[in-house]
Amino acid sequence: MSTSILYTSSTLFPHSSPTTISSASSSSSSSLVALSPSFFSRNPSLKTLLSINKRTSLSVRSAVAIEKETPQDERPDTFLREADGPSSSVRARFEKMIRDAQDSVCAAVEAADGGGKFKEDVWSRPGGGGGISRVLQDGGVWEKAGVNVSVVYGMMPPEAYRVAKGENSVEKPGPVPFFAAGISSVLHPKNPFAPTLHFNYRYFETDAPKDAPGAPRQWWFGGGTDLTPAYIFEEDAKHFHRAQKNACDKFDPSFYPRFKKWCDDYFFIKHRGERRGLGGIFFDDLNDYDQEMLLAFASECANSVAPAYIPIIERRKDTPFTDQHKAWQQLRRGRYVEFNLVYDRGTTFGLKTGGRIESILVSLPLTARWEYDHTPEEGSEEWKLLDACINPKEWI
Amino acid sequence: MSTSILYTSSTLFPHSSPTTISSASSSSSSSLVALSPSFFSRNPSLKTLLSINKRTSLSVRSAVAIEKETPQDERPDTFLREADGPSSSVRARFEKMIRDAQDSVCAAVEAADGGGKFKEDVWSRPGGGGGISRVLQDGGVWEKAGVNVSVVYGMMPPEAYRVAKGENSVEKPGPVPFFAAGISSVLHPKNPFAPTLHFNYRYFETDAPKDAPGAPRQWWFGGGTDLTPAYIFEEDAKHFHRAQKNACDKFDPSFYPRFKKWCDDYFFIKHRGERRGLGGIFFDDLNDYDQEMLLAFASECANSVAPAYIPIIERRKDTPFTDQHKAWQQLRRGRYVEFNLVYDRGTTFGLKTGGRIESILVSLPLTARWEYDHTPEEGSEEWKLLDACINPKEWI
Repeated sequence: MSTSILYTSSTLFPHSSPTTISSASSSSSSSLVALSPSFFSRNPSLKTLLSINKRTSLSVRSAVAIEKETPQDERPDTFLREADGPSSSVRARFEKMIRDAQDSVCAAVEAADGGGKFKEDVWSRPGGGGGISRVLQDGGVWEKAGVNVSVVYGMMPPEAYRVAKGENSVEKPGPVPFFAAGISSVLHPKNPFAPTLHFNYRYFETDAPKDAPGAPRQWWFGGGTDLTPAYIFEEDAKHFHRAQKNACDKFDPSFYPRFKKWCDDYFFIKHRGERRGLGGIFFDDLNDYDQEMLLAFASECANSVAPAYIPIIERRKDTPFTDQHKAWQQLRRGRYVEFNLVYDRGTTFGLKTGGRIESILVSLPLTARWEYDHTPEEGSEEWKLLDACINPKEWI
Repeated sequence: MSTSILYTSSTLFPHSSPTTISSASSSSSSSLVALSPSFFSRNPSLKTLLSINKRTSLSVRSAVAIEKETPQDERPDTFLREADGPSSSVRARFEKMIRDAQDSVCAAVEAADGGGKFKEDVWSRPGGGGGISRVLQDGGVWEKAGVNVSVVYGMMPPEAYRVAKGENSVEKPGPVPFFAAGISSVLHPKNPFAPTLHFNYRYFETDAPKDAPGAPRQWWFGGGTDLTPAYIFEEDAKHFHRAQKNACDKFDPSFYPRFKKWCDDYFFIKHRGERRGLGGIFFDDLNDYDQEMLLAFASECANSVAPAYIPIIERRKDTPFTDQHKAWQQLRRGRYVEFNLVYDRGTTFGLKTGGRIESILVSLPLTARWEYDHTPEEGSEEWKLLDACINPKEWI
């Protein structure tokens, strides 16, 4: 198996109509190996390419070169390349932020779990980049909890880069290097009254191509935190959303309302006409603010995860429940599977491009259920949850 | 909600590069309702459009007009339109065949189940067509068993039709009416040693457009039967494949080897590098044989389902099992979910186009499981099943 690959995918631009094939797209499908594990697993990272695409109406098929990952015995201090420069760079500080967040979230989860321990898989790529996957399975509180970080170096096609640089350019640069780093996590508790949490924060940068040193460098932030209970406790929903709003309000009063709606729109199971849960915040392709401000905002969001979530778990983890409560939780877990396998951009992209499957699908619950034509009784607790998934509410 | 809709989808041609937009594609996404329930649920019926597409290199986005279904209290004698002509037509005989097959398979399943009864939902469309969904849930032997038939009238876009008629035609016919009918079924037993069965047989026809009465009429058959156990019993696999081969050999000695390979290729979970089960037969877009012969072949295949499957169930349904056996079955059910939600053309098409969700997703198991990084011990019974899914075998 080759250690360096080119990947060609029309799915890179899910909302566009591919009309041209890039010169880099001649690689054979047999070389489809090893896109980024956890990063792409939760991340529409290459979605950023789409945003270039959307803004300029240029429609291209794309090729991304990423090397095959290999397992590592120890965590390196950094997954960055030396050439990336000082530890004061945004890349370096973002990597440090997500690794710190991974440590603190995992510590908080283990403490609340009271028994389960995360299993760690470290991997790296020869040319730079790598990741740390941590999974806690069958713990005291969580049936499956994954917290992954990754750093990816890849190549975006020259077409996409030319767009970024200006369509009238007569230069023909080669493929443009990009850097992406992210943390992603899904935490599925056992107790049907304890909600599932998902969060993901990511940073994306392009380099100037080697033969165009003065070319523009692009960057974007993306991410979000959202809550998926099987039963609604209004105090939980309020606490969770207030924590998101507090993080947002430290930076811009428009953030919470805008990202709350974005979240409701994104986590939509179209064929059901319902969201997978009660939302939270979600944003993507964010670069029209000060870069330092957005780095601080993403850090604030990641650091808000544990205080937004763990108190809810502490309140609900030991609530007595019946088989009916458990069956309803399992049906909602089925919806989670439907969203992730059918709609989630990072998951579908990762699956189609040969990412590290176990990291990608750690987001799926340990168990799920599908009953034919199940409809909760109107007015029941199950119905209230479903109603809130169909008609998103303002919790605060 | 409108009762008559136009649907536009680039997914209709999953393997092509859409380069033009048909005039019929201007409908808004808000009108995306009610494509065919069970037919599309298991069927790549519109895949037939793709085959036109592939053959001629014309790449179009497509629009299909299908009306919204309404529940019915009673089964009608036929879902065909009166204008379809005599009961001797292929349409009429195919509908009779699939309805007879639904009756006989359901009767055989109920008899073997020894307790569970099918729940029936009948629906029709104002302009013609409809279906019968039957689901047995939480029976004595099966945890979920669905057997659906449906008849669909729709419109294919003029672009696709012009291709069928000849690209040099200067005529511009309107959208071309099509007829499609099918039976589809997934049977998930409880006992981990009793295998899941799926089968689906379908027939597709185009009419001549009203303003081109002498235009060619196209038709195709498709379908297949495949077995998905969690544990291999060689005698079961041999019995099942022999039944498929016997059905095939009555018509053409090339059918079984060709359709067996087609089945192994189709039910491939690409991101896992493994098939969902032990295969069987699969064929699509079949029209290069005598039409009467293919009708008889599809009938023979449908009638072979019960004798190919029920004896295996009788042998395995009461086999004692452990929690470990059950957990492995549940992991394999997870793979079934992955295939159906990510790859199965009929399911993904149905979900994206707003089909009757409960009919589409009746194919999903009652329960499924995902463990992080689960690998069966080499040489174990679980490993043997996985090996056979990775390296398809010749069973006879």
